[in-house]
Amino acid sequence: MRFEVTILGSSSALPTHGRFPTSQVLNVDEHLYLIDCGEGTQWRMLEYQIKKNKINEIFITHLHGDHVFGLIGLLTSLSLSGRTDPIRMFSPKGLEDIIRVHLKYSGGNLRFPMIFQELDTTKKQLIFGDNRVEVFSFPLKHRIPTCGFLFKEKPKPLNIIPSQIERYNIPVPQIKTIKQGADLELPDGTVILNEALTFPKTEERSFAFCSDTSYDESIVPTIEGVSLLYHEATFLHENADLAKETMHSTAKQAATIAKKAGAIQLVLGHYSSRYKDLQPLRDEAREIFPNTLLGKEGMTISVEQKTEKTRPATKK
Amino acid sequence: MRFEVTILGSSSALPTHGRFPTSQVLNVDEHLYLIDCGEGTQWRMLEYQIKKNKINEIFITHLHGDHVFGLIGLLTSLSLSGRTDPIRMFSPKGLEDIIRVHLKYSGGNLRFPMIFQELDTTKKQLIFGDNRVEVFSFPLKHRIPTCGFLFKEKPKPLNIIPSQIERYNIPVPQIKTIKQGADLELPDGTVILNEALTFPKTEERSFAFCSDTSYDESIVPTIEGVSLLYHEATFLHENADLAKETMHSTAKQAATIAKKAGAIQLVLGHYSSRYKDLQPLRDEAREIFPNTLLGKEGMTISVEQKTEKTRPATKK
Repeated sequence: MRFEVTILGSSSALPTHGRFPTSQVLNVDEHLYLIDCGEGTQWRMLEYQIKKNKINEIFITHLHGDHVFGLIGLLTSLSLSGRTDPIRMFSPKGLEDIIRVHLKYSGGNLRFPMIFQELDTTKKQLIFGDNRVEVFSFPLKHRIPTCGFLFKEKPKPLNIIPSQIERYNIPVPQIKTIKQGADLELPDGTVILNEALTFPKTEERSFAFCSDTSYDESIVPTIEGVSLLYHEATFLHENADLAKETMHSTAKQAATIAKKAGAIQLVLGHYSSRYKDLQPLRDEAREIFPNTLLGKEGMTISVEQKTEKTRPATKK
Repeated sequence: MRFEVTILGSSSALPTHGRFPTSQVLNVDEHLYLIDCGEGTQWRMLEYQIKKNKINEIFITHLHGDHVFGLIGLLTSLSLSGRTDPIRMFSPKGLEDIIRVHLKYSGGNLRFPMIFQELDTTKKQLIFGDNRVEVFSFPLKHRIPTCGFLFKEKPKPLNIIPSQIERYNIPVPQIKTIKQGADLELPDGTVILNEALTFPKTEERSFAFCSDTSYDESIVPTIEGVSLLYHEATFLHENADLAKETMHSTAKQAATIAKKAGAIQLVLGHYSSRYKDLQPLRDEAREIFPNTLLGKEGMTISVEQKTEKTRPATKK
């Protein structure tokens, strides 16, 4: 099952060097979750063949233009393309005002219902769940109310090994409890551990999106052990003063957060227009956290499923 | 002196086939006037090396998204680039609300003053003048309040022929009146016509921008004799019913307006996403008005200066 992130925009506020402002799309089993939507996001979707109509939820970290100016255009295009299914949008306060004032003067409503969910950016919250993922928002430190998002794959039932059903003659009601993790007790008192009855459990994958933010260790517990961490890296550490002043992070700071959180992989983005060549940002981060990718537009990062280690199969 | 139009976007509402929504820039002697500003306009400017900071006036025909969604991004980028000179914006009612709500939630003002001038779209008006051009707005027929714009080069003083000053021993006070068009009366009563004293007058050039609109002959007197007419041509005439329903024009209708107005040249644009190949639109228009160009993004159309015919040089 897919769990992959495609970078649609990697620039900070001033677009240049062919880079578009922030937007990413998370594909979980062909269901698309859009995160931030800078100007031009709909062009990148056309270019990278992202099917915009597969999006039902849009997550906006904050209302700086480079994270939201493309949203009204995308919504309008969805409507013109005939969409009638609702779109749910999660953001700090203000998004609905922005969208509604555009629609007021453009003389028409969209063909689909819009559901706006205003986020409290002062605390961690579970904001959304479906049968694939749960989504949490959590506070980031920026110049205006801003939150990050954590997408966690939902636990799936265990798959029982067919030959074991036959071997132990497991009755149907117990199959259900075994799929939920129970062991099996035989008539002679022997306990067959769940791990011997089921295929190895796959770990739930997760993706954390952290943009824009000052260096902030308080997010570490929230994103602990995350499979893939996107963390903004607007500046090189030689410009740490600028990062502090504008409430952004350096590549070194992004890598430090990834290391402290025990993330598996880090992807960088939100690059300042001052850097045409991005390799120094990657190099700086890799010194702290080797498994760092330089996020580039059009790049798709697939998070692989991992199986847990097996444990001893029986106990008595 | 330059008088040229660059096409930045040629698509109608749904961007596709690599075409961006409507925007054009008129360059008069290195002073840039921006007309409409669909999403992505600032990228096209980067691509075509249009210096955005040379723009002081922005003209918006109406508040449908494909004519205005790029404006907030452009304004924000101008501010981030350090602009402090004011920007004057002309549009139907609503533009200021749209821009202000974005700024309210993005937590900051721009570094330059914005001056919003709300247009009455029910009548022809002189809305702006500087030492290069006069700009008129005039009503178009569309689904929401919409106007076209007419840019007319300002008349320039005549240039006197230096050898004639010597020949007729013209005193300084009369040089001024001759530059304004006066004839010269010699002491013997002979009148030397202005045309014999000055270089041939160059005709004032003009550009009319008509998007979006139903076929509407009432605009013909306003744009009569225009040097370059941009007229939307969303559809082929085989889709005239769709054009009528959506209050747009066909290529044939655009050409008919150009012919009736005695325009010198016509350029088409605002193409429906249904047409990948645009040649049939051009061919249809040329049957009615041969001097028709298919507007394409990146194309610059230069309007040449023409001199008036000379008249007989003396009368007595």
